[in-house]
Order: sequence, then structure tokens, then C-alpha cells
Amino acid sequence: MITAIKDFSKLCLHTMTTRPWTIEECIRNYSEAGIHGITIWRNAIENVNLKRVKTLLDDSGMDVVSLCRGGFFPSVNAMKRQAAIDDNLFAIEQAEALGAPLIVLVCGADKEQSLEKSRDQIHEGILRILPTAQQAGVKLAIEPLHPMYAGDRSAINTIKQANDMAEQINSPWTGVAVDVYHLWWDPELREEIDRCALNRHLFAFHICDWKVPTIDFLNDRGLMGEGCINIPVIRSWIESTGFTGYNEVEIFSNIHWGEDQFAYIGKIKQAYLTKT
Amino acid sequence: MITAIKDFSKLCLHTMTTRPWTIEECIRNYSEAGIHGITIWRNAIENVNLKRVKTLLDDSGMDVVSLCRGGFFPSVNAMKRQAAIDDNLFAIEQAEALGAPLIVLVCGADKEQSLEKSRDQIHEGILRILPTAQQAGVKLAIEPLHPMYAGDRSAINTIKQANDMAEQINSPWTGVAVDVYHLWWDPELREEIDRCALNRHLFAFHICDWKVPTIDFLNDRGLMGEGCINIPVIRSWIESTGFTGYNEVEIFSNIHWGEDQFAYIGKIKQAYLTKT
Repeated sequence: MITAIKDFSKLCLHTMTTRPWTIEECIRNYSEAGIHGITIWRNAIENVNLKRVKTLLDDSGMDVVSLCRGGFFPSVNAMKRQAAIDDNLFAIEQAEALGAPLIVLVCGADKEQSLEKSRDQIHEGILRILPTAQQAGVKLAIEPLHPMYAGDRSAINTIKQANDMAEQINSPWTGVAVDVYHLWWDPELREEIDRCALNRHLFAFHICDWKVPTIDFLNDRGLMGEGCINIPVIRSWIESTGFTGYNEVEIFSNIHWGEDQFAYIGKIKQAYLTKT
Repeated sequence: MITAIKDFSKLCLHTMTTRPWTIEECIRNYSEAGIHGITIWRNAIENVNLKRVKTLLDDSGMDVVSLCRGGFFPSVNAMKRQAAIDDNLFAIEQAEALGAPLIVLVCGADKEQSLEKSRDQIHEGILRILPTAQQAGVKLAIEPLHPMYAGDRSAINTIKQANDMAEQINSPWTGVAVDVYHLWWDPELREEIDRCALNRHLFAFHICDWKVPTIDFLNDRGLMGEGCINIPVIRSWIESTGFTGYNEVEIFSNIHWGEDQFAYIGKIKQAYLTKT
């Protein structure tokens, strides 16, 4: 059953959604707009004092939903695989410093090797950082990415594959992030959402829309209602599992980044109430 | 087991691969290059006398592998659905006139309705044209398209879905076309190729490559070897089923269309022997 969204208490914005803004602007402007969920992208906190950001977040009543992103484990080059581990360990430090309870993993792929090999290296990479994550109290979410990213960004391209890996790892600290953009087309989406939740692996829910036509592989996502995804139906599947987390708006869009970001926040709030 | 390709007896080119050429140029130049398999795209035969083309094909010793493409059945608009049926019936006439034993179906999708609804309309559309196809001696191949086309070009996005539909239709005149570009990422590809062949539904095999990065949603396909698909492995899966049909080179590429097409044919032949 689809229930209407009545307020912004479960609305979270990804800082990448308003990429032109600094982290300080994101925190202040989201909070002033009545949006208190924030997922922080690491590009927004490069060369930034995290203690000061944490104070700002707390003073503004922000709830840090997750840190984006870790991952990119696979490589044919062992030194690069180690560099990825080091970077993920650093991400865990950042998450801890910001009070982020979750890191989203864009798992990675290397075109020089098979997807199976890349998945083995993803599995291995997660196992290597898991003890540190657990010690820091930071969960890890495997985010299956659309098959159009299988060549370079993720060898995990269906929620079934993400569920399989989370089951194999079998830790309360490793789960799955469901993003409608990546998964809307999958005929097994509903049953795999149910399976994910039954395993207590449903860690995050990301929303945006798939524009028709889509003209850029990375930065042409749509605001909810601008595309063909039936977001209310997928949200109802998520909620029917008992999920009570945030609806995270994650939109990479050259078009929307070019707008006045305050006006854009208004559009997002409107679309959140009427098209989500 | 991967066996080397030693000659061009199973090489087929799609006329879209050399789009700058007319149908007459395609026939003459493929034949002179020692390539005798041809899949004809309908854009190449608009306003062309098909009897003359058939004579040219016969005189040049060409084997017409298929006609591309029928399909595009779904629409929220009943008149558009009827127009699609009419167009598919016309395609069957064209196929018969050219001696093409197969029409490849790009099944279609309508962003205004669910993928399930679009699939129902695809099923219905195929059933409506099937008697005419059978009478004409023309088979129909459901081609699953990459999930990045789910919004506008096909609601059938995995080989499993294509196999399911072909099983439901349950006719020796309806099967599946496997294109590595659309399906390479699918973790169930091998088992579904086996299932497809067991059902006698494996009607066609299309090849090209997935470039990393890919910069255009339609026209940035790679020549075999230019991307990350392990084509020899997938070909070995196809051949292990007993498939003895053509390896059809179907490359939409603004880059390659901009080259001298004679030089490009040379590259295709080289890539066919060494990267396929």
C-alpha cells in the first residue's frame, strides 16, 4: 500500500545533490529548509576540519545518515588494491569523526579482469576493512550499481548479487543500499528487497528518477517525477519490510547543479511530497 | 573450450555497422571482402526496390541472416499499438521478399506505463503477428536489451525474461537473439544461454564490445577488442550448445562511421579473427 508522505522528517539530502554548495552551506541551508537528514560525500570534506563540521552538524540538529563513498576495491594491480583498503580505512575514520553510522560502498570493477574476479576482490576488500568498521561502530552498505556501470564502477549490478555477498559475509555490520536509479528495471526487485530486509541487511534507500531520454552516463539523473521510475511503489515495498530509515535524495545532474540551489531545494521538497 | 576462428564463413555484418553505405554498397563490398552473411536493417531498404536487392543478394552469393528490426509493441495509446502491429506485418513482407528467415524484435517500452504492462503488450503483439510470420516462413527473435534501455526501447532486459516469454509463447517460430553488448554483465548469462538452446530458442548471436568509458547511449559501441567484454568466452558458451549460426557484427559507432568504411571492414575482419 502506498501511503502519502506528509512531512520532511524522513527526508535526507546527499551533499552531491547540491554540489555547488560547500559542506557548511549544505548544513546551514538544509537545516533552514527543515531538512535534517544529510548524507555527506567525501569530496565535500576534503581539506576540511571535521571537528568543526561535526560541531556545525550538531548545532544545526542534523542527522548524518551516511558517508559516501567507500569501495573501489578491485584492480589487477595489487598496490592499487592496497591503496583502496587504505582509503576505505580512512573513510571509516572520517565517518567516525562525523558521527556517520554507515559508509556506502561503490564496490568498483576493473575492465582488465572478469566481473567474477572483481567480485572476489570486493568480497576480500570488505572482509579486510570490516573489523575496523565494526570497532568504529560504522556499518558498510554494498550498493548495487546499474549494469551500465559494470565496466568501471561496480561488478555488483543487481540487488540479488548484493544480497548474496552480504549473506556470505554474514555480519550485522555489512548490508545493502537500495537505489531506485540502479535497480528500478530489475524484475526481481521486490522479492530481493524482501529478502534483504529479512536478513536485516536493508541499510539505506536512495531516490531520484530515470529520465527518458537520459543523455549522460553519470550526471543526468532526474528529480523525482522527471522520469519513468514508479518511486511510490518501490517506496511502498521498502516500507512494507518495516524499514524506517530515511528517503535519501541523491541526484547527480548537470542541469540541476546549474540552477539556483535554494530554488532547487524548494523543488526537491515539492517533488518529495508529491512524486515520491 | 574456446576454439580459434579460422575463417570468415560464419561472419555476418549488420548493414548498420557500415551505416554510410547504401544497401547496394553493403552487398557489393561485403561480398568482395569475402563476407557472405548480411543482416539488413530496414533503414537501408527504405524506398528501395526489394526485387532488385534480392537479385543483387543472390548474384553476390549473400546469405541474409535476418532483418532488423521489428518490435516496439508497447504504448499507452491503442492506435500506436495497432500501428506497431501494421509495421511488424510490413516487416514480415519485407523479410519474405529478401529471403530473410528471421526478424529481430527490439520489443519496445513506454515510459508512461509499468514495465510489466509493456511486457504484456509485447507478448500480445508477438501473438498477433505470429501467424503471419509462420505463414511467411519468417522466425521472430526477442532481443533482450541492456537495462539502460528499459525506459524507452525495451521492457525485456535480461535473457531470462526473453527466455520466459519465448517459453510462454511456445512456438518454434519465436526465439531469442543474444547480443553480448546487452547481456555481458548478467551473472546468469551462461545458464540462460543453455536454457535458451535447450528450448531450441537460440536464434541469433550478435557481437561488438563495451567501451570503458562509454560516452553515448546509442552510438558508442566498440569493435571487438576495444572494450571489456570477454567475447571469446561468451562465444564458447554459445557454441557449446551446438549453435552453428553466424557471429553477427552489429556496431553502432559515430567514431567508426566516420572512418573510411573499406579500411574499417579490414579492421573488423582482423578483430574477428583475433578478438572474437
